[in-house]
Amino acid sequence: MSQQAVYKAGIAGATGYTGYELIRLIQRHPQLEIGWLTSENSAGKRFSNVFDAPWDYPLIRLEDALSRAAEVDVVFLCLPHAASIGPVKAFVEAGVLAIDLSADFRLIDSAIYEKWYQTTHTAPELLNQFVYGLCEVYREQIRNARLIANPGCYPTSVNLGLYPLAKAGWLGERVIVDSKSGISGAGRKADLKYSFAETNENMTPYNVGMRHRHIAEMEQVLNRVNGHKPHRFVFSPHLLPVTRGILSTMYVDVPEGVTQSQIRDLYAETYANEPFIHLLPAGQMASLRHTVHSNRCAISITPVDPAQPDGTEYIIASSEDNLIKGASGQALQNFNIAVGLEETMGLL
Amino acid sequence: MSQQAVYKAGIAGATGYTGYELIRLIQRHPQLEIGWLTSENSAGKRFSNVFDAPWDYPLIRLEDALSRAAEVDVVFLCLPHAASIGPVKAFVEAGVLAIDLSADFRLIDSAIYEKWYQTTHTAPELLNQFVYGLCEVYREQIRNARLIANPGCYPTSVNLGLYPLAKAGWLGERVIVDSKSGISGAGRKADLKYSFAETNENMTPYNVGMRHRHIAEMEQVLNRVNGHKPHRFVFSPHLLPVTRGILSTMYVDVPEGVTQSQIRDLYAETYANEPFIHLLPAGQMASLRHTVHSNRCAISITPVDPAQPDGTEYIIASSEDNLIKGASGQALQNFNIAVGLEETMGLL
Amino acid sequence: MSQQAVYKAGIAGATGYTGYELIRLIQRHPQLEIGWLTSENSAGKRFSNVFDAPWDYPLIRLEDALSRAAEVDVVFLCLPHAASIGPVKAFVEAGVLAIDLSADFRLIDSAIYEKWYQTTHTAPELLNQFVYGLCEVYREQIRNARLIANPGCYPTSVNLGLYPLAKAGWLGERVIVDSKSGISGAGRKADLKYSFAETNENMTPYNVGMRHRHIAEMEQVLNRVNGHKPHRFVFSPHLLPVTRGILSTMYVDVPEGVTQSQIRDLYAETYANEPFIHLLPAGQMASLRHTVHSNRCAISITPVDPAQPDGTEYIIASSEDNLIKGASGQALQNFNIAVGLEETMGLL
Amino acid sequence: MSQQAVYKAGIAGATGYTGYELIRLIQRHPQLEIGWLTSENSAGKRFSNVFDAPWDYPLIRLEDALSRAAEVDVVFLCLPHAASIGPVKAFVEAGVLAIDLSADFRLIDSAIYEKWYQTTHTAPELLNQFVYGLCEVYREQIRNARLIANPGCYPTSVNLGLYPLAKAGWLGERVIVDSKSGISGAGRKADLKYSFAETNENMTPYNVGMRHRHIAEMEQVLNRVNGHKPHRFVFSPHLLPVTRGILSTMYVDVPEGVTQSQIRDLYAETYANEPFIHLLPAGQMASLRHTVHSNRCAISITPVDPAQPDGTEYIIASSEDNLIKGASGQALQNFNIAVGLEETMGLL
Repeated sequence: MSQQAVYKAGIAGATGYTGYELIRLIQRHPQLEIGWLTSENSAGKRFSNVFDAPWDYPLIRLEDALSRAAEVDVVFLCLPHAASIGPVKAFVEAGVLAIDLSADFRLIDSAIYEKWYQTTHTAPELLNQFVYGLCEVYREQIRNARLIANPGCYPTSVNLGLYPLAKAGWLGERVIVDSKSGISGAGRKADLKYSFAETNENMTPYNVGMRHRHIAEMEQVLNRVNGHKPHRFVFSPHLLPVTRGILSTMYVDVPEGVTQSQIRDLYAETYANEPFIHLLPAGQMASLRHTVHSNRCAISITPVDPAQPDGTEYIIASSEDNLIKGASGQALQNFNIAVGLEETMGLL
Repeated sequence: MSQQAVYKAGIAGATGYTGYELIRLIQRHPQLEIGWLTSENSAGKRFSNVFDAPWDYPLIRLEDALSRAAEVDVVFLCLPHAASIGPVKAFVEAGVLAIDLSADFRLIDSAIYEKWYQTTHTAPELLNQFVYGLCEVYREQIRNARLIANPGCYPTSVNLGLYPLAKAGWLGERVIVDSKSGISGAGRKADLKYSFAETNENMTPYNVGMRHRHIAEMEQVLNRVNGHKPHRFVFSPHLLPVTRGILSTMYVDVPEGVTQSQIRDLYAETYANEPFIHLLPAGQMASLRHTVHSNRCAISITPVDPAQPDGTEYIIASSEDNLIKGASGQALQNFNIAVGLEETMGLL
Repeated sequence: MSQQAVYKAGIAGATGYTGYELIRLIQRHPQLEIGWLTSENSAGKRFSNVFDAPWDYPLIRLEDALSRAAEVDVVFLCLPHAASIGPVKAFVEAGVLAIDLSADFRLIDSAIYEKWYQTTHTAPELLNQFVYGLCEVYREQIRNARLIANPGCYPTSVNLGLYPLAKAGWLGERVIVDSKSGISGAGRKADLKYSFAETNENMTPYNVGMRHRHIAEMEQVLNRVNGHKPHRFVFSPHLLPVTRGILSTMYVDVPEGVTQSQIRDLYAETYANEPFIHLLPAGQMASLRHTVHSNRCAISITPVDPAQPDGTEYIIASSEDNLIKGASGQALQNFNIAVGLEETMGLL
Repeated sequence: MSQQAVYKAGIAGATGYTGYELIRLIQRHPQLEIGWLTSENSAGKRFSNVFDAPWDYPLIRLEDALSRAAEVDVVFLCLPHAASIGPVKAFVEAGVLAIDLSADFRLIDSAIYEKWYQTTHTAPELLNQFVYGLCEVYREQIRNARLIANPGCYPTSVNLGLYPLAKAGWLGERVIVDSKSGISGAGRKADLKYSFAETNENMTPYNVGMRHRHIAEMEQVLNRVNGHKPHRFVFSPHLLPVTRGILSTMYVDVPEGVTQSQIRDLYAETYANEPFIHLLPAGQMASLRHTVHSNRCAISITPVDPAQPDGTEYIIASSEDNLIKGASGQALQNFNIAVGLEETMGLL
């Protein structure tokens, strides 16, 4: 296709928050427009009846979308975990570019998938056809990919925050990640746990330690970028009373002799040309406001002991919008890379 | 019972927000303690498993509570609307003081109940045995009452705010009430509409105009306190992104010739000895912070046109905590009045 | 200039919320870029030191910007009220397009300005050179204008909500406007009144009745669009605990005989081709989520009495983002119109 | 004094949040009432003009209060840091019980004070006359004390959460504390950093690592309760967008061979009779809702690796209301202990 082509997108599962966010972003993307939208619960209605938004698209069933695969150039799958596997097979056969926002194809190894998700993977043969769409790390593989697994929101914040250290071999074995996520991360559903009166003015840790599934994506990225280092992630997510945003405060050890300025240089070089990475200068800490409502990830580097600026303990903080850089924005960035458009198109 | 008696309370429907709030308030009431608590969904569990609270009471089924009516001196019914009717009959037979926080017995006239609630009242014979427990207006009837219908949260804020004007015959025919309520007012339930990500950073009017059931309680109180005046209530509730609190901004007309100082005197006299009414001086407006986490109702009186301070248009604002003065606190106040305790006991 | 031209913008007062928002919007506008930014308090610093944002522009003093007027095609003035008058004179002399976001030039009549702002206007001769930039009402005058007064946030929500009724002569004399505004509306400043711990979980009416300066803009627009009708605005703003957004709930009377469908048709025709007006169908109410983080205004029309759908009392609700449609987005829309670009450019 | 005595309290610095909270709590304390209140900024006004509250006490200057020391039995000093030293001397001379909520007398060693606060202590001779009022740890010293330094909010959450481990000698050397605090913790002041529009929907780490003054109180308590163990605290406070509450998520190592059940038993025994400590059962995590608006501290104990329940890594989470257990509630608890009242009086 030429540069000026307008692509068409199908969105499977358009009435969750990631679907909504994709539709919102596509409104301002000059070379992408909506083909069809699916919703199992709201098929037959219009999108503007389901959301407080003016975008008046019809909603169809997924099974009807499958027969209309040829109408679109790309499908974004925003389905619940485990629900993507069947449709992905169909879109693979139809030859359409598929970007899956679920966790179904993120893990290379079906055994690891099954360990964390406690269910047998029903299409293990597809796993190695997928590229893990962490754009800043796997950009080359994403170009021309036809199957992209969009990373999870928590792992994106952790992996982008620690990738330079891990790649350089400077990340200590134990990594303590204290993450705080806005409540849209739980998805759009009726659940007392996520109701306003339960979560507002509250803060709750959950699944802390080594229990959360998203650890698998951290291991898959950070343990492999410099050989198979056995980093061990203690990961404590917390429900934060904001609608959107993830802040990860990460406690890491670096080898003796590695100085603060070496670490800053490493990050600066690694992310030198990245339009969506915002490296903060010494003395500033990443906050949610650096990134919410944008596709950016902000990263700050702080030595634990200011009296020993070249000590071996650091606090890396990273922030992102869980629905944009942690989901739909990154999916669109993957699309732009895969089809050869300007990577930032529609994402500024 | 003597002044030093300790009463026992049963709470039917203890795992909603009004049940929680009653249990919390009873912890600090020196002459009231928990007898039993019911919960249809959580029977068999402990209260401390259902709420983030240390109060370790067992939860039993309502049907089991009915046979233990004699163990308690008062039953607070915090059941969903229409669910109180059966149990109330049983508690009436057992002779226990019953304070019903639902809407089932608030309306004197079953025809009005049926008009607004679109369902036939199954115990119309009980309606006129109930006292409407708006303490500041019906205190004398509440003393020694055995059946008390606790007022709704919105009507309490409106009725307390306008009662002096209505009683004096100074309230104009059309009353515009723009109310804003915290989201706990919708109850404790899994409902997408009340989820954090839908309600936070949002504000939504709903059931505006003459559609909301709570108008019936405004008519019942304000149209009758000075004969049968046909006040007409345009009532617009809004979902406000706070956990608790109701602010009602009320636009009223008074007769020509009635001065601002007459109105202030009227309110001051009407509420002279009321421990829970906080009348604000000229120039201050009622805000939620005047009242949340207390049993108070704050009221402000502001002429519309400061250049014509004795004009006929006023803005009356009232605020209250919807779960305390608008529900459980008022229920406890009713209990204190009914059994002859100090009215403020446990409520400061 | 050709369609592909890139314009340069100067922003005077870039470190308030409207300045920030303009800079954010300009990042995605394909034909506008930053020339210079001024800040009296932060001159000498970089924008990225003042805000949690990656945009690394230098900040200069206003007096230095005046000598660099020729470097830019448009100046957006985001200065405190009364501070725009001097700079505007300088930019007028330099011949640069000036869009003033303050209140200084919004009122045609300096006497009215002085009545509401209690200060003498020091450049009354400029007042009638300004166009009032309410795009949907005064679009023809805005084309080719060189001096544009950007409307206030509250008046935009009220004027867009009531303009069709007023223009048709169907708006009753007394209009009751109960508005709720996010706290960014108060500006970016250290003030205990707007601190988190004072405003969160709170709701406060202020300057209610006929006291708020913004009433002057409502009168100027709505009283003149169909002759000089003496509409009288009872306007009650409330501080709402959200960062952004204004919801105005408006209680209006229409003449007998005007039906609901006539009113709906009137709105549909008036706003038929407006890209930023979102008219809601019967049964839906405008909420903040319809519009925040967008340049849209959502409007709903609801008869007060559903039993008399063609009664004469209506509730019109409108919502907008106070910083976008109520300020910086509308300013950019004015720029697009004035220079002949696509009106929606950079605003989707 | 007899059990039925009513004590009088003076509050120096009554118009901050801790002053407000003390006044609110004293309303429901049956044996304590307000003597006088001071405020440098609001002297001459009434308390009800300064806060949205009905308590109509006069506000006087601190210098006038000093001459009225004999009128009260206890003085609560809620003054800014460094401002308590002078008044405390005066109250010491007057022989009144003084409970200081500032940091001025919390550190036993003036050298440590001067290291962290970067200012010379002007009354070092008083330091060792003060008891550090962490009630659950130093109760015996508090009985009959005349000078009590009320602990800081962050250290209270950390010290109560880790005291059993430290006392048993089971706390590893490095302790990582990731704390999240509501914004009232910053005090009541006009400061852009704490304004609603800057903090809402945001989350910001600040002073992370080994920079925060409150570390000194953690060292003073936890390093001494079992000899002089050199625990090292990596302490990362975060600004959390809630009004009140502190959640501390603490990453600790215990010696090999210490089992989970031993740790649970240790906590259970240590806090067996503590009315304000809420130990959570296995599987529950401390959240803000466990404690806000109460004087409680909730503590949860979670092994990092559920597959190795007796591993050596644990996550201890503790929550408290920063204004109550972290300040005014604990001050009142100290008062109750010091004068021999029921410890929970007024605090349920």
